[in-house]
Order: sequence, then structure tokens, then C-alpha cells
Amino acid sequence: MKKPKIVVLGAGYGGIMTTVHLQKKLGTNDAEITLVNKNDYHYETTWLHEVSAGTLHHDRSRFPVKSLINTGKVNFVKDTVMDINTAEKRVILENSELEYDYLVVGLGYESETFGIKGLKEYAFSIANINAARQIREHIDYVFATYNNEPVKRDELLTIVVGGAGFTGIEFVGELANRVPQLCKEFDIPREKVRIICVEAAPTALPGFDPELVEYAVTQLERKGVEFKIGTAIKECTEEGILVEKDDQVEEIKSATVVWAAGVRGSHIIEKAGFENNRCRVKVSNSLLAPGHEDVFIVGDCSFMINPENDRPYPPTAQVAMQQGETCAENIARLIRGEKELKEFKADLKGTVCSLGHDDAIGVVYGRKLFGSSASFMKKVVDNRSLFLQGGAGLVLKKGKFNFF
Amino acid sequence: MKKPKIVVLGAGYGGIMTTVHLQKKLGTNDAEITLVNKNDYHYETTWLHEVSAGTLHHDRSRFPVKSLINTGKVNFVKDTVMDINTAEKRVILENSELEYDYLVVGLGYESETFGIKGLKEYAFSIANINAARQIREHIDYVFATYNNEPVKRDELLTIVVGGAGFTGIEFVGELANRVPQLCKEFDIPREKVRIICVEAAPTALPGFDPELVEYAVTQLERKGVEFKIGTAIKECTEEGILVEKDDQVEEIKSATVVWAAGVRGSHIIEKAGFENNRCRVKVSNSLLAPGHEDVFIVGDCSFMINPENDRPYPPTAQVAMQQGETCAENIARLIRGEKELKEFKADLKGTVCSLGHDDAIGVVYGRKLFGSSASFMKKVVDNRSLFLQGGAGLVLKKGKFNFF
Repeated sequence: MKKPKIVVLGAGYGGIMTTVHLQKKLGTNDAEITLVNKNDYHYETTWLHEVSAGTLHHDRSRFPVKSLINTGKVNFVKDTVMDINTAEKRVILENSELEYDYLVVGLGYESETFGIKGLKEYAFSIANINAARQIREHIDYVFATYNNEPVKRDELLTIVVGGAGFTGIEFVGELANRVPQLCKEFDIPREKVRIICVEAAPTALPGFDPELVEYAVTQLERKGVEFKIGTAIKECTEEGILVEKDDQVEEIKSATVVWAAGVRGSHIIEKAGFENNRCRVKVSNSLLAPGHEDVFIVGDCSFMINPENDRPYPPTAQVAMQQGETCAENIARLIRGEKELKEFKADLKGTVCSLGHDDAIGVVYGRKLFGSSASFMKKVVDNRSLFLQGGAGLVLKKGKFNFF
Repeated sequence: MKKPKIVVLGAGYGGIMTTVHLQKKLGTNDAEITLVNKNDYHYETTWLHEVSAGTLHHDRSRFPVKSLINTGKVNFVKDTVMDINTAEKRVILENSELEYDYLVVGLGYESETFGIKGLKEYAFSIANINAARQIREHIDYVFATYNNEPVKRDELLTIVVGGAGFTGIEFVGELANRVPQLCKEFDIPREKVRIICVEAAPTALPGFDPELVEYAVTQLERKGVEFKIGTAIKECTEEGILVEKDDQVEEIKSATVVWAAGVRGSHIIEKAGFENNRCRVKVSNSLLAPGHEDVFIVGDCSFMINPENDRPYPPTAQVAMQQGETCAENIARLIRGEKELKEFKADLKGTVCSLGHDDAIGVVYGRKLFGSSASFMKKVVDNRSLFLQGGAGLVLKKGKFNFF
């Protein structure tokens, strides 16, 4: 009898956790498991704001895929997914093709610019390791340029962050810590540097507890971050951005605009013809793509309503990792010929939003946390994520222990 | 009786050594000594190729001016020289003016582009700390950009160095050592990177012993440097350079062009109305500017013929430092009312040209040196320079001890 072929696309949180659990649940005789990823490394997406700000080296936030999987059970293919042909059950890669009996799509997120003019051309986005370290090097470069020009251009020292959501806030928190180092490195007076966070919504961190939001904003302002709340970015240009508030348009000159206000699923979702909204697929309770019995979608390419509060699950690492576990269980059940699939149910432990390595806010098991206790918890969360992916060894190697 | 006012412009090799010797030779009652420099630090110009390549941090190659001088005897003014009025014996600074009885001009070099189109706009030059670290950050940035673009542009990984003289060769030597680190940092295959050194003269290192030149070129080629000798840069553009050899014009696409082929004296020399050639003044044997009894010029702004071989003294740190000593002696003699000034005579110990931190060529006391012995000697030279400026303490703090 031919062994069923399982193909997992993407070694992000969802794909890795699916693979890790598949290799636990299935023996080498049960199935042939292939994991495809465009890089030979996995990275911690939730740490990219630190890589972008230059407070964490990118090598601290990535590790070889092969260190996470059992290569005796899983075949790893380093290649880029170009398309999925669900009718023929084939995945088209840049350099080859793969057939599957069961497919797991965990291709992650891309930046969503909502059609705002110029963002694609002129703004950076914290999309992956390559993008994050480019932001870091860009900031270093414009700071280094400042003192080497006969006429000083203050826009070289103005960093605009589009979005005061989770990513935007975590990023400005790191930047506020990084800027004094940059000033020292390049002989720049701190007061010349501006970090401006622009948010269209009427509050920073929409959806968070207002008391926590106020704490976050106050702490970040104290570190020198300027907030422009209820202010929309109208356009990004080579020189900076145009923002609008109460029908007043203002230009902010800036050499560094980082767009951190929107994500969508992978463009492959749309290309492959899945029913989608912003490249996210509304999956069944068992994580199946609608109309498919053999295609599971996990992580940022999936969309699900949380029955407990009738709101969509947030596109977080926590949810993606838990989906990976359910997905692996369901594939194992199908291979064993079971009819009933497990329903995904998230165990939402809480959320912690960093304000730099020494400060944070969060809600964990329903309890509000501020300052150093939240910051401690943030590192616990980060280390727990490592533990779930790669065990204690990975925590020791890449974990965060600068607790105080 | 009024104390004579001595003003020293520039805290480079010549200015610092003049000041250090003046404060030894003169008491606080003999003269009022003022040293002017645009930065509050002195830097080792001869180490800037390392700073530019990113193999030495700029803070390792600079130190506070006040750590080199006796502030009880010397008044330090951090300001930029705008002009010199020799008729009124005044120096015009950006923020103030100074009167002098004796003036020492040690304002160093600027880049000389010989009118080649586009060099000023598009090429970098290893001019000072600000320029050097901008080159380092620029290279980091374009390497970081490479993997973050959908279509890979190889010109991001092509570094063109204009000039295979002393500075050009030392710089490509450091670059060749740095590139493997950059490739590892940014996940770039080494073979994608090109370092191209373009020289119009018929040989690299014109004026050096041919055997040493051959050794240098062979060693650098082995490390991956490409030489285009007898090839002139015709133009520098936003995309790269146009070179010409045997009437054939070729375009080399490059995001990083560093011009290391020509220096001139400071533009202040011309502005102040001194008789000059490329902003260098042909000084008397006692280092006086022609037509002046009170203006001495040292270092790269001065020009002198070596009577031993009838060729100009090279614009080196060694010569500038020795001039500083003679200059201080002559000012002391004038203040003491002596008529006879000391004639400058260089004690040329030799020249060592680095090919990266682990290799070099040189002629020291007439002996040819290659490889590790030359490299050792280079570090001895660097440390000796520190010793002459700031004593043993400075050598311990900033010296180079990675001998092997």
C-alpha cells in the first residue's frame, strides 16, 4: 500500500508545530511528511520588531529548520511556493513540484497597505528577517549620513511608524531604547531625533484595556515617542508622509517610514483560488479549507471566529501554534481512517505587549500586568514559544534571560 | 608685557604634534597657546581605511583632544575654521574670531576629484570619521538590501575603489577581509560579491618597489580583489562608473564607489589667499608660508621638496608629525627672540602598506618586508604614532596588539 503524502508549506509557527506534532503522532510507515520553506531557517516573527530596531541580532531570532524537526521522519525541501493546484493535488515550487494527499498551508502574512499611495514604494515593513535587518541597517545608515552632510537634514533623524497596534507599539518601544545608542554611536544630540507613531484609530492599541493603553502611551512618551492618534496616513512619498487629522493635511519629512498597521495572508492563497478575504481563508472548525477534505490552513492565512466571544481569533503566534497541534491530530485521524475530526479551540492564555526590553503591558489569565512584571511575563511567553517548538535545548540556546 | 598668542588650526597629526611640543617648550608665562579643531576628538587618519571597511570601530581610532594636550597650558576651542585674515592676523571661526601673533595651519586634506564627472555627487571618499563610518554603514545597508528585493541586483554587491595607491590598496585589503563576514551576516554567497580596484597609472602602488607591488596584487587577488590597472575612471553615475582602457569604454554597475585616488589641501588655504597648488603651500625650509614671518603650515596643506632625492615629501602622518616638532621649535625660537630657525629634515623610517590586518608590504630602514613581518611592523608604526601623540597610556588604550 502506498504511504499517504503529507506536505506542509511554511516553517512558521503554524507549519512548524504541525510538523513537530505529525512526527510525534505518525510513524515512518504511516506517512511521508515533507516540509517546504523558502529559507533553511525558522524565525520568531514576534521578535522581528527587535531585529528591526537593532536591539536584537537577527541570528538570535532564527534557527535552522533542521534543528526543529526529525529529519529521519520529515523530508525538508528548501524552496519557494509559487502556486497550489488543488484539483491535481500538486504544489508548484520554484525549482520542483510536489504531490500531496494532505496539504497544510502555513504561508504566513504579508503587509497590507490598504491602497495607501506610495507605501509599497517608499515605506519599509517588518515582514521577515530580510526586511527587518534592512530596516535596522537603513536607520544606521541615515544616522551615519547626518553628520557627513554640509547642510544637516533633520528628516534623516525622523522615524515614522505607521500604526499604533501591537506591532507598531512594540517597535517604537524598541526604537526608544535604541535611539540613545544610535546617538552615541554617531555623535547626534538626542533631541534631534524624532520617533513619530501615527494611528488612524481613535486610540493606540485598539482592543486593549484603556488603563493599559494609557500606561503604554505615557511610558513611551516619556521615552520620547510622539503619538499622532486619530490621524490617517494619506500618502507616503520619497520625502516622508502626508497625514490628515480633522481635514488638516500635514507633511512630515522622514527618511524612514515603517508601515506596521496591516497584515494579510499570503498571495498564494488568492493565486491558488481559495475563497478568501485579504488572502485569509475562513476555515472549518477542524481547520479545513472550504470545499476541501485534504487541505488544512493554519496561522495567518486562516480565519476563524472564536465561539466564546464571536470575534475573530487574532493572528498571533499563540493561535497558530495551537492550530498546528490540532491540524496534526486531524491529519493523523484521517490517515487512521477515523471519520470524526477534532475541533480547534484556542486556549488563550493572554497577551503581553512589550514597550522595550524593560517594560510591557499585558493581560495574562485575565490579570492586568504593567512594567517589570509584564516584561518578565513577555520573556516567559517568548521562551515558552521556543520550548514548544524546539524543547529545552532551544530555550537555552536562543531564550531570553535578561529578566531585569 | 603682552604674552604672544599662538593659534594652532587643526588637531590632526601636524597640529597635535605642534601643540604637544609647544606645551613642552614654553611655559605659561611665555605664550598663550590656543588649539582649534572642528571636533572635540583627534582621529588616526591612517586608520580610516579600517573604519570605512568596518574592520575597526571608529571609536577605536579617535580620542578626545583634551586627553592629548595639557589644558593648563593650552586653550582648546571646538569650532570650524571659516577663513584666515593674515593682514589683520585674525582667524575667522564659525562661532567666534581669534587673534594671533603666530599661526600654525594644520587643516589636513580634502578629496581631489580632478574634475572627473559625477565623483563629487555619487562617490564616497575616505575623508574623515564621519565619511568613513558612512561608507561602512552604506555597505552594510546595500548588503542587507540585496536579499530583500524580489529581483536580485548584483550591483548592490559590487564595490568599486578608485585608485590603487596607498589608501586604495589598504582599503581593498580590509574590504577583502570584511566581505566574508558581511556575506555570513546577510546570507549572501561570497562569489556574488565583487571588489574592483581601478587605477589609471600603469601599475598599482606607483613608486613602490615592483617586487612588493607584485606580492601585494597577488595576495589581494587571492582574496578576491579584481584589479583594473591602466584604466581611467571617466565618469561616476548613480548606477556605477564608466571606465576607459585602450579607448574602450566599459560600464561597471555598482552601488558603492569609493574614490581613494587623490587628495589636496584644505580649501581654507585658497580662501585665505595663500599661494598654492591644489591648496598646498610650498613652505620654506623652516615651514613658513611664503611672504609670512608668522604663519607656519604643516601636514597635508604644506608642500616641500626632500633635498635628499629632489622629490616632494609624501603627505604622510610621519612627515606631518615631524613637521609639528620642527614648527614648535621654530615658534619657541621666535618667541625667545632668536633669529635662526631650524630647518625641517624628515627622518623617513620607511613605509608599510597594509593588505588587511594579517598581511602587509613595506620598506623599513631600507629593508623590504612582506607578510606577517610587515604586518607586525605596521602595528608597531601605528602604536608608535599613538605614543608620540599621547604617550604610553594612549598606546595601552587604543593600541593594536592583535599581532598574529
